[in-house]
Amino acid sequence: MIATKGLEGVIIDNSEICKIDGNAGRLIYRGYDIHDLASSLSFEEAAYLLWNGDLPNREELKDFNDQIVRQRSIPESLNTVIRNLSTSSNALDVLRTAISTLGVKVPLTKPDMADAIAISAKIPTINAAFERIRNGHEPIEPRDDLNHAANYLYMLTGSSPDPVKVDALNKYMILLADHGMNSSTFTARVVASTWADAYSAVVAAICALKGPLHGGAPAPVLQMLQEIGKPERAEEWIRNELNSDRRLMGFGHRVYKTTDPRAQILREIAEKSAPKDLIELAKKVEETGIRILQEYRPQRKLYANVEFYSAVVMDSVGLPPDLFTATFAASRSIGWTANILEQVANNRLIRPQIEYTGQIDRKVVPINAR
Amino acid sequence: MIATKGLEGVIIDNSEICKIDGNAGRLIYRGYDIHDLASSLSFEEAAYLLWNGDLPNREELKDFNDQIVRQRSIPESLNTVIRNLSTSSNALDVLRTAISTLGVKVPLTKPDMADAIAISAKIPTINAAFERIRNGHEPIEPRDDLNHAANYLYMLTGSSPDPVKVDALNKYMILLADHGMNSSTFTARVVASTWADAYSAVVAAICALKGPLHGGAPAPVLQMLQEIGKPERAEEWIRNELNSDRRLMGFGHRVYKTTDPRAQILREIAEKSAPKDLIELAKKVEETGIRILQEYRPQRKLYANVEFYSAVVMDSVGLPPDLFTATFAASRSIGWTANILEQVANNRLIRPQIEYTGQIDRKVVPINAR
Repeated sequence: MIATKGLEGVIIDNSEICKIDGNAGRLIYRGYDIHDLASSLSFEEAAYLLWNGDLPNREELKDFNDQIVRQRSIPESLNTVIRNLSTSSNALDVLRTAISTLGVKVPLTKPDMADAIAISAKIPTINAAFERIRNGHEPIEPRDDLNHAANYLYMLTGSSPDPVKVDALNKYMILLADHGMNSSTFTARVVASTWADAYSAVVAAICALKGPLHGGAPAPVLQMLQEIGKPERAEEWIRNELNSDRRLMGFGHRVYKTTDPRAQILREIAEKSAPKDLIELAKKVEETGIRILQEYRPQRKLYANVEFYSAVVMDSVGLPPDLFTATFAASRSIGWTANILEQVANNRLIRPQIEYTGQIDRKVVPINAR
Repeated sequence: MIATKGLEGVIIDNSEICKIDGNAGRLIYRGYDIHDLASSLSFEEAAYLLWNGDLPNREELKDFNDQIVRQRSIPESLNTVIRNLSTSSNALDVLRTAISTLGVKVPLTKPDMADAIAISAKIPTINAAFERIRNGHEPIEPRDDLNHAANYLYMLTGSSPDPVKVDALNKYMILLADHGMNSSTFTARVVASTWADAYSAVVAAICALKGPLHGGAPAPVLQMLQEIGKPERAEEWIRNELNSDRRLMGFGHRVYKTTDPRAQILREIAEKSAPKDLIELAKKVEETGIRILQEYRPQRKLYANVEFYSAVVMDSVGLPPDLFTATFAASRSIGWTANILEQVANNRLIRPQIEYTGQIDRKVVPINAR
């Protein structure tokens, strides 16, 4: 069976986790619409749902919160690992190395829920520790009385975070927690299919998230907005990019043929959390980008994607651009581990083929005759 | 398009690197048969071929050797990273963490030949450093006058290696250097397709190699041979495993429907490099395993796979079982990077889909009503 390049449209398996309807612009976790989830849940409830299949009741949620809180701290030896990396390091590379280091201590066992909780609970702590260390400060211990989003912001600054920012980050983290067979989640499933451990599968997913065609996009989007600077400069700037054959970051998606529902919700969040001039600029760039891309590529309508308003929301809650992808990882680790657990529950090694189109029947001649 | 589970038989793209004919039992690199390559080349020549598409002439090979030799050393800071990991760590986890650490210093750039050389040249040095450190010795600096296989064995022990062992390891490293869309190489391509850097793609490949269904098999094969102990115990031991529903390690392959040519060549190598009693035992276990598996699974004939004799050869050259998979990585890094370079030369993001078979149209109820 010859598949399409990039495996576009190829269905690799069945899953009960996440449904994307690219034509209708709908995203569903475990049967619940993303609008419903983002408007009413905590990140912890969404994580519980993605991992367990159902929403928790009060007692289950309390117990689950306790488990996450207990797993937030990282050993001092891991802070030492982070301290020994250059302060100019990319935060996602630091996260990759930190999770790999944690995984060295873990025996090769079948991934389980305890792994999922342990890894996901620690990612914000690692990101915050690196942010503190590179700015010459000591890492801040997690606070047990704060929820996941609030504690993340607290560990970055040491101050009690603004509720508007906590709400924005909480919603962002729900929205980005899973998204079908995106490249990093697919990578996690391939690695888990070899019977590797959960840490190896998550490290590999972080590797895939790094690429600018996947999780690496939000920081360049913010840079684009800063370069454009004023709404009235959007049209000229975008035309110049497209005329120079550069890719416009934050537009278009492999699966959505209409507006990405996450981009819509993130825009609404940004309206509350971002400065008025930034949100006005972003909306102008979005509208102008869609219009001009339609002109340059009339065969397919492109929309602002999730990275576009992710950049605005992450900036508005006080995250530096270099932490955008590492924060995406803090959210998507839920989807990675949910998919890893589903993969190993009904596994078959993921091992495709490739069509050889090279030379044939060559004979090795001795080096003196070459 | 609904693909088969595990993407079995799904062709993801075209490639000019490696051809596997699973029915004929043939393996070809860049048009050359693996028998021809293993019998007449150095590992360096095979790496040059896989990366560049043609065999080097004398001058090209000299220049290429110089480039590899220059890249073998690792910084003292990386030895410190390795020293800070527990001596009981898994060697492949150490390698994953070490390559990730090296990658932290590298800016996000398109993978190139310099990355391929730098990474592949350093893997034996990292493996040997960990082996030395965990045994309480200092790491040994690479020796410029030794070829890749000889230098690896030298760095493990500090003694000039036996030519029979060097030859065995050289051939092993050629045989294992590439193999179509095996799970780790596929993982490397998925990660590279996001425009991530070469270090991220190789780290992810190491993650996939860890699984016992992929690169993790050789050590359990050696353990099996040691447990069986004597040829006359093979039948009883194997029947007991299969009756207990355990998987027999070192038999069967997704692609080969006949003898894996690498297993054949490795058996010939082992005849020269391994102690007579071990090779006699291995041959008896191979013959018995094939016969009994045929009896238990008459619908498909299973053969000894590459891991089976890999274990015997790696043991015979003096590698401890815990270094088997990390040594596999030292060889397969050539194929990983050749595929990464081919992927980015004509890229399309690898992003498949998954079929949602879960619940639909659920409504979030407030937590007090759950």
